[in-house]
Amino acid sequence: MKSSERKFAEGMLYTDMYQLTMAQLYFHRGLHEKDALFEHFFRRNPDYGSHKAGYSINAGLEWLLDWMAEARFGTEEIEFLRAQTGRTGARTFDDDFLDWLAANGTFDGISLQAIPEGRVVHPNVPLTVVQGPLAMAQILETPLLNHLNFQTLIATKAARIREVGRGNLLLEFGLRRAQDRGASAGARAALIGGADFTSNVGISKVLGYPPKGTHAHSMVQVFMALGEGELEAFRAYADIYPDDCLLLVDTVDTLESGVPNAIKVFEELRKAGHEPVGIRLDSGDLAYISIQAAKQLDAAGFPDTSIVLSNALDELVIWQIITQIQEEAPRYGMDADHIINRLAYGVGTRLITSDPASALDGVYKLVAICEDDAWVPTLKISENREKTLNPAHKKIWRLYDERQKATADLLALAEEDPAAADTLLLHHPSNHTKYRTISRDEISAVEPLLVDIMVNGKVVYDLPSIEEMRAVREHDMERLDHGVKRLMTPHIYHVSLSQKLWNLKQGMIQAVNGDEEQQVPTQI
Amino acid sequence: MKSSERKFAEGMLYTDMYQLTMAQLYFHRGLHEKDALFEHFFRRNPDYGSHKAGYSINAGLEWLLDWMAEARFGTEEIEFLRAQTGRTGARTFDDDFLDWLAANGTFDGISLQAIPEGRVVHPNVPLTVVQGPLAMAQILETPLLNHLNFQTLIATKAARIREVGRGNLLLEFGLRRAQDRGASAGARAALIGGADFTSNVGISKVLGYPPKGTHAHSMVQVFMALGEGELEAFRAYADIYPDDCLLLVDTVDTLESGVPNAIKVFEELRKAGHEPVGIRLDSGDLAYISIQAAKQLDAAGFPDTSIVLSNALDELVIWQIITQIQEEAPRYGMDADHIINRLAYGVGTRLITSDPASALDGVYKLVAICEDDAWVPTLKISENREKTLNPAHKKIWRLYDERQKATADLLALAEEDPAAADTLLLHHPSNHTKYRTISRDEISAVEPLLVDIMVNGKVVYDLPSIEEMRAVREHDMERLDHGVKRLMTPHIYHVSLSQKLWNLKQGMIQAVNGDEEQQVPTQI
Repeated sequence: MKSSERKFAEGMLYTDMYQLTMAQLYFHRGLHEKDALFEHFFRRNPDYGSHKAGYSINAGLEWLLDWMAEARFGTEEIEFLRAQTGRTGARTFDDDFLDWLAANGTFDGISLQAIPEGRVVHPNVPLTVVQGPLAMAQILETPLLNHLNFQTLIATKAARIREVGRGNLLLEFGLRRAQDRGASAGARAALIGGADFTSNVGISKVLGYPPKGTHAHSMVQVFMALGEGELEAFRAYADIYPDDCLLLVDTVDTLESGVPNAIKVFEELRKAGHEPVGIRLDSGDLAYISIQAAKQLDAAGFPDTSIVLSNALDELVIWQIITQIQEEAPRYGMDADHIINRLAYGVGTRLITSDPASALDGVYKLVAICEDDAWVPTLKISENREKTLNPAHKKIWRLYDERQKATADLLALAEEDPAAADTLLLHHPSNHTKYRTISRDEISAVEPLLVDIMVNGKVVYDLPSIEEMRAVREHDMERLDHGVKRLMTPHIYHVSLSQKLWNLKQGMIQAVNGDEEQQVPTQI
Repeated sequence: MKSSERKFAEGMLYTDMYQLTMAQLYFHRGLHEKDALFEHFFRRNPDYGSHKAGYSINAGLEWLLDWMAEARFGTEEIEFLRAQTGRTGARTFDDDFLDWLAANGTFDGISLQAIPEGRVVHPNVPLTVVQGPLAMAQILETPLLNHLNFQTLIATKAARIREVGRGNLLLEFGLRRAQDRGASAGARAALIGGADFTSNVGISKVLGYPPKGTHAHSMVQVFMALGEGELEAFRAYADIYPDDCLLLVDTVDTLESGVPNAIKVFEELRKAGHEPVGIRLDSGDLAYISIQAAKQLDAAGFPDTSIVLSNALDELVIWQIITQIQEEAPRYGMDADHIINRLAYGVGTRLITSDPASALDGVYKLVAICEDDAWVPTLKISENREKTLNPAHKKIWRLYDERQKATADLLALAEEDPAAADTLLLHHPSNHTKYRTISRDEISAVEPLLVDIMVNGKVVYDLPSIEEMRAVREHDMERLDHGVKRLMTPHIYHVSLSQKLWNLKQGMIQAVNGDEEQQVPTQI
């Protein structure tokens, strides 16, 4: 796609067609400027099949705000809509609506609250709350989800990989297997979630990090094809990058050729006054080869060089590698921790795609609409009880126990203040037999999670740096119970409804189910 | 990301750092302008776990060419590289190299052959062959793979869904769950591979298709919250879109409320001289509900209205729905085919992410380098024999049997002409015990697959429209054996080496394995 076309494709019409057909309907019914409240949340943490996440890391907000700041209904957008026709050839959008859209189709009326980027977040908790004129809030649904779903998915994967990798150096290598330009957002999310750096040069500049990388197999192949060998290739690399010499040792035979050749070059470097960085392993039994490579490096006097691992890594593979090293290293007279501590991880495909959980199921649901200056809660019932909406204008609170660990997120009506209550009744969101009672003195802190981001189209929030987001993530991770962070079968973190919200929801469900009329909203 | 930043992030530095550190090394060794030959291919068709692809659909080339046409080493790119430093604070890239890059870092020396978009393609067959100066051909690796891997992945998924869905209307709905801007490439690939339309408005314009969509649950919720019901919401929709009335019937209760209300509105429409389009089902047991909804619609005199299905569809789910309708429809006195033929499919998440095979493993490998005016083949041996490279400058042929079905793709040395041979020996690419002998008269056609796309930086190829790519895809699909197209356990399509290529490869492997020197390329 040419960049001129990209500007259009990813501008204001970067949305689903039905948002626009609905907006026109609202316009003709005089509903388009009615104040509406939509909540964005996801229903399940990423489930990777053999393992799954017990938490997620929120990300993507800043880029959504960047998109909102630039998106406009310009002439080209309006004329494209004017050219749309239905089955009979009649125009889909009429002039009245298009005139309104051209003049008023902005986000100037939108206010937005959100949980900040980098925070640990949980299913069914509103991460973003959008308030504004119905038509524009509706059109915003698709681009909002597009920006937030993916980055949250990837930040979560990065956090898991970092946890399993004991916080060792983690590099994002996924550009070549990424989803076209999804690579940029994926790299950003990886940096927020746990990667230290990315190999992606362009996005590194935008995000303010140095790009990382050394060399590929092709460099060694070139030297071999020209009648020189792996050793000459390594020497050439060391010659140009004497203080940053990290050599890929598996082009020919890792333990017979690659590591011995690397050691020769490392010795030459050291004689010339430079310390080598290390080696990279990209194939084979990475745990076994790490042990053997470490053994050779130690024996040669290079016990501090890094061993960078790559090739289809993810949190499960890294966990397996570390476990295998713990088991096997002693057989070779090696200290497992010494090997594990020198590992670094280059993670490509499975981080940038969150394989095999390739999407977060974030949704954007109408929870209330303003009528006669009051919020009328809205409901969508599902046969799957867990998917029935939590209605109404709400506030979100995180409760910490005596150990300063997060014990539950509480969804409450906007006017409630759980910090002021003596006892809190926490309802399971869909199962009426499950609830918890906590007395206020068991709670060390009650923290509101949503912050004001945008008020009437103006950003009122100091956008944090990625470094700040990382600090937020680390702080939240420390306050998360160990069981929730477990690689497999994590504890289920409690997301609960307040008594008042529970009562409202049940009343609304009964009103619909018990009545032939499909409405009866309960005014609050 | 602001669009000014995006221009940089996704310009010439939309590549991996190591491509640039290697380019600098080639520059200092005087190798940077040596003519090199790289091949792009993938190793495995997408494997979705419970089912897998027996073929893939090639896509992405035009957008790669668009990227190449715009990418430049401008001042900002060069200055960013100049600012990069290593561990000791010394600059990573020196002025000589950066001066060369600023003056010569273009794709003007690159020539490119490729298999056209829309064609059926197979593992280990070069889809793209890049010839040009080593440094720039190396830098191109990452952006080439980024553009081609993803679109081929998604086009393949779309083709599978279309096959299972019997060619019925297929709509791409994935923008909200897509990978940020990966949505645009995904929508394009879906249209090439098998989707008729997308709901994504912006990309529809760029690609020349009308965007599709009707309404969401939120529209019905709005009417309910304001004291009106589902019926009023449907009437409002029919009022504005009388000739394109497709109603989402599962906001309250599909069979008790949604379908009866839709029928009321359809009757009103018909009285006013309009024929309704149909209904959409987005939850529940879609096969069962389709049967019951069809029964209600038939009884009311609307046997021709569409039933659009959505909600976590993919080829496996659609196959299950069709099978279930075939089994259950007769129990309700319904004709299964009549129901199946009126189905249309809105596929979101699992198409745009190719869930759960979220990446294609496409690679870009150096296969030859020019020395003294001759191509010297290059090798990379792998412990996994299947991953050992097929070396040398090659041509690719597709062989068709007497039934006009494709029977094998043949990789041969560039100077070979299989069309002229009396007998063809087709070697399994890695297993020496497996080969096939075919006499020329069993072969109805021998087709060269690679076409010239770019010669010395100039596009020499008439870029086909998406309609033309679709025709190519359909033609190739017709010539593919049924077993290869099977949803599960597909036959393995033969990708073979010619005798001469086999001999060359074996000779090179033996030269490396039988010698302490890790080189000995075989001149051809």
